[in-house]
Amino acid sequence: MKIILVGASGTIGKHIADSFGPEHEVIRTGSKSGDIHTDITSAASIENLFRQAGSFDALVCTAGDAHFGPLNSMTEAQFRIGINSKLMGQVNLVLIGQHFINPHGSFTLTSGVLSHDPVLTGANPSAVNGAIESFVRAAAIELTQGVRINAVSPTVVEDSPAYFPYFPGHMPVTMKQVVYGYHKSVLGAGTGQVIHIL
Amino acid sequence: MKIILVGASGTIGKHIADSFGPEHEVIRTGSKSGDIHTDITSAASIENLFRQAGSFDALVCTAGDAHFGPLNSMTEAQFRIGINSKLMGQVNLVLIGQHFINPHGSFTLTSGVLSHDPVLTGANPSAVNGAIESFVRAAAIELTQGVRINAVSPTVVEDSPAYFPYFPGHMPVTMKQVVYGYHKSVLGAGTGQVIHIL
Repeated sequence: MKIILVGASGTIGKHIADSFGPEHEVIRTGSKSGDIHTDITSAASIENLFRQAGSFDALVCTAGDAHFGPLNSMTEAQFRIGINSKLMGQVNLVLIGQHFINPHGSFTLTSGVLSHDPVLTGANPSAVNGAIESFVRAAAIELTQGVRINAVSPTVVEDSPAYFPYFPGHMPVTMKQVVYGYHKSVLGAGTGQVIHIL
Repeated sequence: MKIILVGASGTIGKHIADSFGPEHEVIRTGSKSGDIHTDITSAASIENLFRQAGSFDALVCTAGDAHFGPLNSMTEAQFRIGINSKLMGQVNLVLIGQHFINPHGSFTLTSGVLSHDPVLTGANPSAVNGAIESFVRAAAIELTQGVRINAVSPTVVEDSPAYFPYFPGHMPVTMKQVVYGYHKSVLGAGTGQVIHIL
């Protein structure tokens, strides 16, 4: 299987690359590293990614920024960080990528627990994650030729202790649990699913 | 109670204005009509709304556009219609309005059934509605001085037959049901709730 992995140098992306690497062809992309450099906030850069990579069987995205900060001083510009990166970046990977993906391929996006279980300072990632999960449900009923789409929605991961103070009472999940979630989406048969890693 | 109603001339907005009008002071706003004209895609216009209206007890928004169209030809520009109008418009009403609202006031936003029950051509409103519902849950835990926030999430309404073909099997709800949803948010005590009108 030819898998495009967007965010391949990230905390989660590295482990996904390692897990799929032995058996599949993994095209690693990142903003500043990887086989192809991609800025997901730019539709032109995403178009370039697919033109360079050619047709593919699975796209996995673990990239995308959002803004953490208190609601009472949040600005539109801060809120748009998550809109332009984690949300529109992943939406554009699908809108553009649907014209390059092979029949029976799959898109796997990344949302997160804040869509339904918020924490202080998380209004922007909450909104972005909720949008991604609803987008996945909607896109699943329109994609053709057996193409599937799911979102993996992890809570805080044991490998990211810097986030722990923001997620009181969220028991960190193991990276193995997270990687298995992406395997379920890519190697399984489900579509329109939000795969919760809790 | 002083209620700012954004979208007062719309299908739902008119009925909400009528229902609150006898007992409350309703400030009607719309893009081209009402007591104050407001373009919700512009933060400057929203800021102007609050400066003109002054402090208030409740804000209800029933305004906001999104793009209906097939996924296989959807462009980023089309997807951003819903982002810039129904999503960022309502988010900005809260980000800016939180500095003008009275203690124990409330924000009531509008999402819709497509967040969790998609229809063909609805990927953009699905994503936008999902974002609004998750934003409401997150903002609720950060607003101070007893200020509340909820979303009303209606399916297709009997007064909008033009939408019926897009919503096969969605039994239209009555306008009375929808208006009661807004009453629950404004006059009740809940916060962080998605009030489903199904």
